[in-house]
Amino acid sequence: MNPTQGQVIAMLDPTTVLRCASEIRIQVGADGHLSIYTPEESCQAGPHGLAVLHAFVRPTRLSDGLAELQARIRGMHEWIELTNTLTELYRAGVLLDETGKRPVVQPAPMGFDTAGIHVAMLNDRVRTTRFLAGIREVVRPGDVVVDIGTGTGVLAIAAAQAGARHVYAVEETGIGQVAQTLFEANGVADRITLLTGRSTAIELPERADVLVSEIIGNEPLGEQVLEVFVDARTRLLKPDARMVPSALRICGLPVEIPEEKLARHVFRAEALENWRSWYGIDLDPLAMAIPGAPSYFLLRPQKARHWRVLAEPALLLELDLRTFTDQEIEVTRTVTATASGSLNGVLIYFELALGPTTTLSTNPLQVDPTNCWYSLVWFVADAPSVAPGDPITAVYRYRVPGPPPVEWRVGSLAPA
Amino acid sequence: MNPTQGQVIAMLDPTTVLRCASEIRIQVGADGHLSIYTPEESCQAGPHGLAVLHAFVRPTRLSDGLAELQARIRGMHEWIELTNTLTELYRAGVLLDETGKRPVVQPAPMGFDTAGIHVAMLNDRVRTTRFLAGIREVVRPGDVVVDIGTGTGVLAIAAAQAGARHVYAVEETGIGQVAQTLFEANGVADRITLLTGRSTAIELPERADVLVSEIIGNEPLGEQVLEVFVDARTRLLKPDARMVPSALRICGLPVEIPEEKLARHVFRAEALENWRSWYGIDLDPLAMAIPGAPSYFLLRPQKARHWRVLAEPALLLELDLRTFTDQEIEVTRTVTATASGSLNGVLIYFELALGPTTTLSTNPLQVDPTNCWYSLVWFVADAPSVAPGDPITAVYRYRVPGPPPVEWRVGSLAPA
Repeated sequence: MNPTQGQVIAMLDPTTVLRCASEIRIQVGADGHLSIYTPEESCQAGPHGLAVLHAFVRPTRLSDGLAELQARIRGMHEWIELTNTLTELYRAGVLLDETGKRPVVQPAPMGFDTAGIHVAMLNDRVRTTRFLAGIREVVRPGDVVVDIGTGTGVLAIAAAQAGARHVYAVEETGIGQVAQTLFEANGVADRITLLTGRSTAIELPERADVLVSEIIGNEPLGEQVLEVFVDARTRLLKPDARMVPSALRICGLPVEIPEEKLARHVFRAEALENWRSWYGIDLDPLAMAIPGAPSYFLLRPQKARHWRVLAEPALLLELDLRTFTDQEIEVTRTVTATASGSLNGVLIYFELALGPTTTLSTNPLQVDPTNCWYSLVWFVADAPSVAPGDPITAVYRYRVPGPPPVEWRVGSLAPA
Repeated sequence: MNPTQGQVIAMLDPTTVLRCASEIRIQVGADGHLSIYTPEESCQAGPHGLAVLHAFVRPTRLSDGLAELQARIRGMHEWIELTNTLTELYRAGVLLDETGKRPVVQPAPMGFDTAGIHVAMLNDRVRTTRFLAGIREVVRPGDVVVDIGTGTGVLAIAAAQAGARHVYAVEETGIGQVAQTLFEANGVADRITLLTGRSTAIELPERADVLVSEIIGNEPLGEQVLEVFVDARTRLLKPDARMVPSALRICGLPVEIPEEKLARHVFRAEALENWRSWYGIDLDPLAMAIPGAPSYFLLRPQKARHWRVLAEPALLLELDLRTFTDQEIEVTRTVTATASGSLNGVLIYFELALGPTTTLSTNPLQVDPTNCWYSLVWFVADAPSVAPGDPITAVYRYRVPGPPPVEWRVGSLAPA
């Protein structure tokens, strides 16, 4: 029997089985882009080429490979680059099918499964509203504006609505095609030019009065905001250009991670005792054999609203984005404990200055419940006890070779 | 000033920067294992070799690369293989450091950050208790038992405690070293032999009376339970050997995904209206430009306990693990709608027979709140309306080339 009536509802892309060619030669460029050669052909691939090959290193259904790749993607831009790379690898015969059927993969402008990312960002009403408010405060009629990483183009549209003479919307990925339809739907297409490429690789026909850019990651510096802003100041902006955001602060909040949360990530004596009683098996050696906690976990900061805070936040980094020059950062700060507890974690959050009267913060004590960023919560090894008045010292580093990026100690500094 | 007093608490492994060599040649073996050559040297790597290279395709701190790799790992075994591969690639010069410092990476028996995985499985008291109960029902004094994928060895210990004459505990990864310490701590090391390797690649000195194996994935067949059991019956077990589990059922529950959950994954009219009102920007073209919903999302089934169920579950697959032979599966089932609603999703769960009186189910209506498995919830395109009495037809396939693995339609079957 086969289904022969009614509407067949396919819930999955076809299950074409793909696998990696058995002989590949790869040249890795300085920027992570790849040249990939089979004995017969060659192609170019973005930095995700190896991830795509990995997903199909054994014969794998396209749908399964995509599901695996989804799991490691940080955001929409990565996903679009990755799916386009997959298509190109298939075209060039680096990925082969076994059934003789062509897989249903088109270089879609939006990639796959990106709706959820937009939904989360747009539902973060405080994030988007504050960026729009900053743009209205900073952009003046007649300005030339550059929006780096425009994505769906919302900030570029807001800049045009605020009176910009012209907006250059820079977007590396195919989502720019969608932004273009939004420019048209909102009646500002004549004043916005979409530029496809990385901001560090494109040229503007004129220097801009204002830089707008939302490229703050869960690790605030992780989307290369420092590198992008320095390059923009050098090549794309007028002297003394205005910026949204104009300043970035990164703070570390010394906390006591609640026992319930901690118990999900590390072995606790109570759990070992439970398991012995439930299962009749001594599992204590497991706790000793397994290395300690992971370095950090990700948490929406609003979920830490009621955690015990052990000290005022340490201001780890304060950058005026209009003037900073150092891209290697090393800062040491000391704060004073205000409560007693076990210093087992440090939650990292950020604050942005978006306009003269507009700021945005992911401080767990202030953040909106709809906030879409995650905070990194670092485990502090050995979880030292602190009491009010104890000094807590933090060292924060970015791009300093050698030592770890974050260190904490209970104690004061010796004079230099 | 440098910190010079007190205990410095390093919260991260050193930030050695690694990057992929610029010229690599790769041979991909039939099982996904790799031979990787630089102009100077060569090495062998597991199926995760390409994922590791990908993480370091640009110069990347070891800690950052590991964090990225963590995000794509399905479980402990993968993580151990992956970190060992990283070590080997570094040793062979396929990954190069730029600072002259050696990264702190040892082939750790447990890999990195695995505690959370064990914690979740061991805290799933129903899962572990039922497997132990099944073992006590099935294993008889004097039996020879093989435990495939022993992991930390808990099931092997239970088999020994149940009176097995000898247990062969098969484990592919270095976690077997930890299992060995647990065998000793529980006084059963003289009756358990650890065998390192894949079950399909190892030999037993004698055939076993009982097979024990917990290799049921979030996608129930995803850890290759069919392939492993067929191979074990052929090579490792006596005729008519007993099994824990002895049967596997996979069911699809037709549901109406609640609006609140749906709105996180797809564009809904209400959200588009909100955004227009909040931001003064028409975002409707975004919804049209972006392809539909993702194929599925993962959800702990206990979170679907109160979802509207539109029909009895469809029994998509029912396998007697002691006798099945087909590894290509195609099943068609029809169920009758029992409620009105929008058929926008199908939740997949499984049931195991673990002993004559012991079962385990991830049915959302029965599952324990501590359950550690995720269910796949498939979106049904176009979300057809159903009313009581409507037939709903499901087709489920495994390893059938061509058509999708799951299809649903509202309607009955024509006679064959």
